[in-house]
Amino acid sequence: MMNPLSDISSGKFGQKTGDNMISFDKAYRIVLDHPGDFGIEQVDLSEAGNRFLAKNIIADRDYPPFDRATKDGIALRYKDANKNTPLVIKGIVAAGTPRQKLPKGQNCMEIMTGAVVPLNADTVVMYEDIDVSSGQAHLNKQPEKGQNIHLKGSDDNKGALLISAGKRIGASEIGIMATVGKSSVEVKKLPSVAVVSTGNELVDIDKEPLPHQIRRSNAYTLRAALSVQNITPSLHHLPDDPQMIRNQLQELVRSQDVLILSGGVSMGKFDYIPKILAELKVDKLFHRVKQRPGKPFWFGRHNDYNTWVFSFPGNPVSTFINHHIYFNDWLRASLGLAQQQFNVILKEELMIQGSLTRFIGVKTVWDNGKLLASTVKSNSSGDLISLASYDGFIRLDPQKHPYKKDEAVSFIPTRLY
Amino acid sequence: MMNPLSDISSGKFGQKTGDNMISFDKAYRIVLDHPGDFGIEQVDLSEAGNRFLAKNIIADRDYPPFDRATKDGIALRYKDANKNTPLVIKGIVAAGTPRQKLPKGQNCMEIMTGAVVPLNADTVVMYEDIDVSSGQAHLNKQPEKGQNIHLKGSDDNKGALLISAGKRIGASEIGIMATVGKSSVEVKKLPSVAVVSTGNELVDIDKEPLPHQIRRSNAYTLRAALSVQNITPSLHHLPDDPQMIRNQLQELVRSQDVLILSGGVSMGKFDYIPKILAELKVDKLFHRVKQRPGKPFWFGRHNDYNTWVFSFPGNPVSTFINHHIYFNDWLRASLGLAQQQFNVILKEELMIQGSLTRFIGVKTVWDNGKLLASTVKSNSSGDLISLASYDGFIRLDPQKHPYKKDEAVSFIPTRLY
Repeated sequence: MMNPLSDISSGKFGQKTGDNMISFDKAYRIVLDHPGDFGIEQVDLSEAGNRFLAKNIIADRDYPPFDRATKDGIALRYKDANKNTPLVIKGIVAAGTPRQKLPKGQNCMEIMTGAVVPLNADTVVMYEDIDVSSGQAHLNKQPEKGQNIHLKGSDDNKGALLISAGKRIGASEIGIMATVGKSSVEVKKLPSVAVVSTGNELVDIDKEPLPHQIRRSNAYTLRAALSVQNITPSLHHLPDDPQMIRNQLQELVRSQDVLILSGGVSMGKFDYIPKILAELKVDKLFHRVKQRPGKPFWFGRHNDYNTWVFSFPGNPVSTFINHHIYFNDWLRASLGLAQQQFNVILKEELMIQGSLTRFIGVKTVWDNGKLLASTVKSNSSGDLISLASYDGFIRLDPQKHPYKKDEAVSFIPTRLY
Repeated sequence: MMNPLSDISSGKFGQKTGDNMISFDKAYRIVLDHPGDFGIEQVDLSEAGNRFLAKNIIADRDYPPFDRATKDGIALRYKDANKNTPLVIKGIVAAGTPRQKLPKGQNCMEIMTGAVVPLNADTVVMYEDIDVSSGQAHLNKQPEKGQNIHLKGSDDNKGALLISAGKRIGASEIGIMATVGKSSVEVKKLPSVAVVSTGNELVDIDKEPLPHQIRRSNAYTLRAALSVQNITPSLHHLPDDPQMIRNQLQELVRSQDVLILSGGVSMGKFDYIPKILAELKVDKLFHRVKQRPGKPFWFGRHNDYNTWVFSFPGNPVSTFINHHIYFNDWLRASLGLAQQQFNVILKEELMIQGSLTRFIGVKTVWDNGKLLASTVKSNSSGDLISLASYDGFIRLDPQKHPYKKDEAVSFIPTRLY
């Protein structure tokens, strides 16, 4: 068990002075420059919420598909409308009945919202503006020609583009797709993801940890974060056994689109897993980024199996941040979507020391259309519990002068609003 | 079939001049003043995402539970640290091994991130700051006492409040609950909801509508909107048959916590369903609100069965808006949560005519920490397709002067950010 760790006792694997580290901008660019393409799939409309549309949605007919009454009242010919001459009510048109015909003469028909305006009628007067007695309608005021009619095709014509491919499907898109008859819909397929935690200090949630142990949390945090993207990952834990690690990673690299590793941030282990990944022909694209927290991030790709490996450092805050920054934006790139840019306004002045890009947890509050951010006290980058106070993270690149109060800075939201 | 509709031919049910209408503020207040209470339930941690925590989460032990190394390197006694005298490496401490003891003298132990700092050690020096040769570590610079150690209990002590009841459970809360051993968690129970569409003009998604028919969409829109709240409603469609409506509503009022009706906005039907609801002893709390769209909203409650009835007008935009304004905020009130206030900054001047509170669809864009809103052209309140362009709605109360460009106004978001 100690063998892989004691390899480093000679110091030859000690990483000196950050010479291999790359800038955050470069790391982020490399991740986005290696997107996947997972194709499309057909899902039932009930499963389509929050997914990304793969094909344009086109109007199957005119909308509205007929001249539609928008008020309850009477349908009439405008030229017959006269305050002094009542109209004989010649019937009633309910929604859902075929188009009827208004007999010519001083006539009208009662009509319900959503019903087809009868032939020969061109105007609808609502009940509020008439009096009805003895089967006759008396107009209380002169109507305007064409009022209260939603004309056929006035929203969109048959063949019109209703929703563009790439749109995230919300409740309104579900309604539109129902209207045009899409009981199933083509959406961008999501990658299969395996979340792999490592570390002999970890026990499962339902176990009582010994004094030197802690419970697994990163795997569950990552599963919850992935579920926001509609991804249900498989969860795995690797014991510190080289052969088992090799076998499991080999199987996962072959069978999954994405591996998200967490834990095993110790240098011995970290040198150990990449060594196995290299043997399994996962190409390292970079290792270690000039950022805090989240520095020991390893990113690679298996070019034959088309498998991406995000190997995040073990501490919970680092994994949480790196997942939101790198994986989420890589996923958007892989789905062919533009990146989203959020920013917030600082409620305090912040001075950043050193040469690392910093990610700092903030709490946000709305103030007259502005999103204001204030930092939250936290002991350390390992302070998982502090995450409950954060609504997201601000990104501060190193600079000589302080970030000023009221300055807008880049923001990575980690909660739904 | 025509009987219930022809009841209104005499005009006696005609609603004149809005005399029964109440203001939006009053309607909103009535809805919020009639919250439900659905208790709590235990769910598996994997099902807890996006739910609301019912009980405080308390630290089961100190966090960190032991003095924890935050870097890979060597653990030593600060008083032995000297650039000129190497330290003998007396072993290696991996994460997951019980606490070890550093032998007294000019000694150190290699230590991995996440491991327990050995007895007698008080300082950790990372590999970057040492050279290792012949089983000895040479310090390259003088360390600071206590560095790179995350002290036991420094984040939180056993018994500390980690997450307060009422918090929406995100990925970070899932991680914290995993850490403290919550494989299942008590969350606020959600109401059972039946979505009921009405209207003989409606056919199902997979049917080809006749020229005077349209497909059902509100039921699917509402189901998708409810799924954002983790509610999976049952869907029902009522044919225009009084006995069937009565039987179905009776069954639903008894068995469900909430009924959301949509469609049947025509006055005849609208007078008809409330009549049955009254017979079923659902108390009307109000009908018709001074708002556009969404005016013919009917709200009531069955006090014996504890059932709430939200009867939204049939047009898709009205139902969509009313659901987001009334149902969502009623749900928050029922879960004991404070309401969320969002606002946006207008990109254009807007003049509101008339005496109705207006809800206007807007597209939003982030600009240096501000959320800017611009209106989207739409033909009518029935224009379902326009909803795809909206990120939410602004609420504008009637006022004599225009709403100005750059003014902040109330915002109801209808998409996830």
